[in-house]
Amino acid sequence: MKIALANINPIVGDFHGNLELVTDAVSKFYQEGADLIVFPELALVGYPPQDLLLRPSILNFSNLQLEVLAKHVQDLASKRDFHVIVGTVCESPEGSATSIVNAAVVLSAEGILAKRAKSLIPHYDVFNERRYFASGSELPKEWTAPVKLGNTMVGILICEDSWHDTVKYGRELYQENPTQRLAHAGCELLINLSASPFQTGKKSLRRQLIANAAESYGMPIVYVNQLGAQDELIFDGDSFAVNGSGELIGEVESFTRSECVLDIECIRKEGAQKSKYMEQAQEQDADVSRTARFQLVSGDEGALAEVHQAIVTGIRDYAAKNRFSRALLGLSGGIDSAVVACLAVDALGVENVLVFSMPGKFSSSHSIDDAEALAKTNGIPYKGFSIKFLQSTVELSLKPYFEGTERGIAEENIQARLRSLSLMAISNKFAHMLLATGNKSELAVGHSTLYGDMCGALAPIGDLYKTEVYALARYLNRNSERIPQNIIDKPPSAELRPDQKDEDLLPPYDVLDKVLHCLVEEDHSVAEALDVLKASGVEVSKELIAEVEQMVWCAEYKRKQFGPILRVSQKAFGIGRRYPLTTRIPDFLS
Amino acid sequence: MKIALANINPIVGDFHGNLELVTDAVSKFYQEGADLIVFPELALVGYPPQDLLLRPSILNFSNLQLEVLAKHVQDLASKRDFHVIVGTVCESPEGSATSIVNAAVVLSAEGILAKRAKSLIPHYDVFNERRYFASGSELPKEWTAPVKLGNTMVGILICEDSWHDTVKYGRELYQENPTQRLAHAGCELLINLSASPFQTGKKSLRRQLIANAAESYGMPIVYVNQLGAQDELIFDGDSFAVNGSGELIGEVESFTRSECVLDIECIRKEGAQKSKYMEQAQEQDADVSRTARFQLVSGDEGALAEVHQAIVTGIRDYAAKNRFSRALLGLSGGIDSAVVACLAVDALGVENVLVFSMPGKFSSSHSIDDAEALAKTNGIPYKGFSIKFLQSTVELSLKPYFEGTERGIAEENIQARLRSLSLMAISNKFAHMLLATGNKSELAVGHSTLYGDMCGALAPIGDLYKTEVYALARYLNRNSERIPQNIIDKPPSAELRPDQKDEDLLPPYDVLDKVLHCLVEEDHSVAEALDVLKASGVEVSKELIAEVEQMVWCAEYKRKQFGPILRVSQKAFGIGRRYPLTTRIPDFLS
Repeated sequence: MKIALANINPIVGDFHGNLELVTDAVSKFYQEGADLIVFPELALVGYPPQDLLLRPSILNFSNLQLEVLAKHVQDLASKRDFHVIVGTVCESPEGSATSIVNAAVVLSAEGILAKRAKSLIPHYDVFNERRYFASGSELPKEWTAPVKLGNTMVGILICEDSWHDTVKYGRELYQENPTQRLAHAGCELLINLSASPFQTGKKSLRRQLIANAAESYGMPIVYVNQLGAQDELIFDGDSFAVNGSGELIGEVESFTRSECVLDIECIRKEGAQKSKYMEQAQEQDADVSRTARFQLVSGDEGALAEVHQAIVTGIRDYAAKNRFSRALLGLSGGIDSAVVACLAVDALGVENVLVFSMPGKFSSSHSIDDAEALAKTNGIPYKGFSIKFLQSTVELSLKPYFEGTERGIAEENIQARLRSLSLMAISNKFAHMLLATGNKSELAVGHSTLYGDMCGALAPIGDLYKTEVYALARYLNRNSERIPQNIIDKPPSAELRPDQKDEDLLPPYDVLDKVLHCLVEEDHSVAEALDVLKASGVEVSKELIAEVEQMVWCAEYKRKQFGPILRVSQKAFGIGRRYPLTTRIPDFLS
Repeated sequence: MKIALANINPIVGDFHGNLELVTDAVSKFYQEGADLIVFPELALVGYPPQDLLLRPSILNFSNLQLEVLAKHVQDLASKRDFHVIVGTVCESPEGSATSIVNAAVVLSAEGILAKRAKSLIPHYDVFNERRYFASGSELPKEWTAPVKLGNTMVGILICEDSWHDTVKYGRELYQENPTQRLAHAGCELLINLSASPFQTGKKSLRRQLIANAAESYGMPIVYVNQLGAQDELIFDGDSFAVNGSGELIGEVESFTRSECVLDIECIRKEGAQKSKYMEQAQEQDADVSRTARFQLVSGDEGALAEVHQAIVTGIRDYAAKNRFSRALLGLSGGIDSAVVACLAVDALGVENVLVFSMPGKFSSSHSIDDAEALAKTNGIPYKGFSIKFLQSTVELSLKPYFEGTERGIAEENIQARLRSLSLMAISNKFAHMLLATGNKSELAVGHSTLYGDMCGALAPIGDLYKTEVYALARYLNRNSERIPQNIIDKPPSAELRPDQKDEDLLPPYDVLDKVLHCLVEEDHSVAEALDVLKASGVEVSKELIAEVEQMVWCAEYKRKQFGPILRVSQKAFGIGRRYPLTTRIPDFLS
């Protein structure tokens, strides 16, 4: 069977545009001779639609889409045997607790041939699907049965259905194994429609998972993932097929709307063995996360290339889908804004990026030089002015109220806020999207100014720890010195008071980032973090971990008011991490 | 049986403090002769704990709490028959998909006598509990069985368990009726431990629901709700008991940590009839919401008093629990900041509120007068300075870039941002909590400046439409003119350009708010909203609704970066409404 893997890049809620993407791809692949075209999960709606799904009118729109699409497929399939499988929302049958099903719709010469439901409904991390969808087991049996396409029995899986052995916090999330159920029901081919968000290391894990399922049940599997970014989430579009021995038989290029029509022999191998992998996969995701972090910081080129592509996709899609063509950022001379400037250039083109330098009273001359050097080296339009006079004017206005107090955080923040006020004025005037340059370490401990350097429509490196930002900087410099070496070599500083260095207030970043990883990614308490860090040879005291934890908890209110962060790790600040603002650190014993 | 209803006000994650609250109440009510003390849902943890619940260490802390508390109860119960029922998290039994149970723990002379689970796990609106908890039906039967306290068979319900007939979007959410199950299992008394968030009209609905359940099954019901605010959510602490005829036999004062020890006759009435109410309750929540809105705008004193108490509680608890004693806000001379100033005074005391007036180039003299009059009338400390000079200085700095452009939104926003920069400087310097004064109408359509007047730690009236803000202003003036009449009478204006009026850019608020209610609270499409509004006699065109919808969708990115809004309606902007930033308005036909 000739199967086309259509890794399209939809826009959430764009019922017109997404239908056009799908029908165009159908026409194209039909002409190229495909017998079956597979689209991602919720391709006609875009993923994740969030509370759009609660609007009763959504079903009207998706039904209208399906009507148009079904007609189109019927016209084509009247000439030769031809099928399309597309993800969308369908109305739940009577008696379900939710109105809608996360469905794969099979279209053929007969119009709508079948509707199949997602069996496993994830509701951890960034996933929230129990809010909208019933699970397969809550629906009548036909919603999860195999479908006969011509002479081939096909089993349809939707995203999470292939992750049935996911373990979180020591518990298996699901009692059901949809892959096994479909294999036992006599399928000769499995198809997975996905909208599986990117994170470092996820692609190889996913490939391994699918290959091992194919091998275990002796059956080819076709996997199609959504492409493109949607707010915080990035989708790599990674789509591929494996044969019944788990061998890769074709793939598209990740992060690219690319073509792949594969000729797949749909035969169930007899006597296939459950591979050993299944058990390995049950280990905690934390291991993937730890490995991923290690990969980035240790300079693994493959992992860095992937993260680079992901962030560039994230910036490009957020801008394009929100109708921005240009971006703007403040350039401090430090590593974070330098890296974000290069990423913005890679996403939007150098002519569409504007960098602004706004030195204040405590900006060092080398910072200004470094900022200028970065702009010049990369040919980025560069403007700026000193905020010293503004700083003095504001301080003068506030003098009657501040009389007799010592300079402190209030004055430091004024600088950051005057910069953001100026950047937002430029952004408002010329429709440049402002990029926030904060990194994950600084967001974690709250070393950033709310309504100051935290301003921005999108935070491209908000899910990279400082040590990972350095690794990405070195990666960006792999062929030529895009980021002046001095920016990489000098000690990091916010320059909000004379001769300030980050490490005056914080532990060295290589220690801090390891502590943060324990607290944020792994949800450890101080005592647990101490054990884990000691075991891995990190020199750190209980007091230091407690101090860092305190900073993380106290900065929640700032992160609440931060823009979307492009998620590249297992646990980003954002929709996948929901902490109370008003709280105490739970530490009963201390 | 003498039962104490202990409507405590815990802090999320404060394992020390909450344990102290509980043990103190246990001692006190024991001395007052109670046989049983009932605490709210998750009283030992605080509600909602959100992702705190994912930390593996949480169970250690809650187990330690239970040990201490069990010992305390054992000591007391050794002298006479005595029980305590408290909400907390417990470890799930083997084989569950989640690690923890949302549990009611029964303590007695034997220590931990029983653990019972919440059966119905809500995951709509502000609720997210499927992320953490297994439902009762997924647990072994003993977790949902009645408990024998002395000679009385008691059925334990946790919050949502009493709302089994909730209908959302035309679907019944739950297949199970825990009240009925426990009644049929021979209980003589039902107890509901709740953390049921406040919304206008909810209290009477809740009372009716419980009374009708009691009448239907001929059984007394004791209901205990959490008190106090936690970020966006406010809990009214409404706790009461009804007898087997559904008659109220005792209650605490709402919004007050108050006392109520009731002597309850625990007898199952024979031959009780299922009351008609159950079917009525199945009508859409939207009706409650519509009624509630009508109540406020029409000046219903009871409803306004409730909202006033709720918001005052919200401000007071957010401040106290986050260790602020003072609040600050910018006073424009308009209705919103006037109302917020009065609410802040009612919450924190006049000596703990500071108002700042910062007139700019387009502020009218009457605005300055009105602001000053409000401060004087209420005796609120009042400071301020003109931002005109700052405005000119910033505009001068930006002149080289803005040359040849027309004055517009960029310049308007500079004013708002200079004000917030000054307010944040005061806030940072003197640890005043900045209050955001935005209302729901303006947040909905995006008529507010991000990083400008949207700055603030908390938005007290962010869930009140403009017409409701006026109603609350009139309520605040019911005994004396706290808000100068001129502020109520003059046409609203943001004063960001000469002679600007809100209604130059927007439809009149009484129309706008009705349109917004259709779009936000009821999730209607434009076509549906048109039908609903026409049917209720509102003169409005399809084009106007479409324009308003466009504004609502385009402002999502601003609301993403807004602080917590005190929720008083059925659908507030915040955790209960999760819309994508990157999206298109789904309108397939237009």
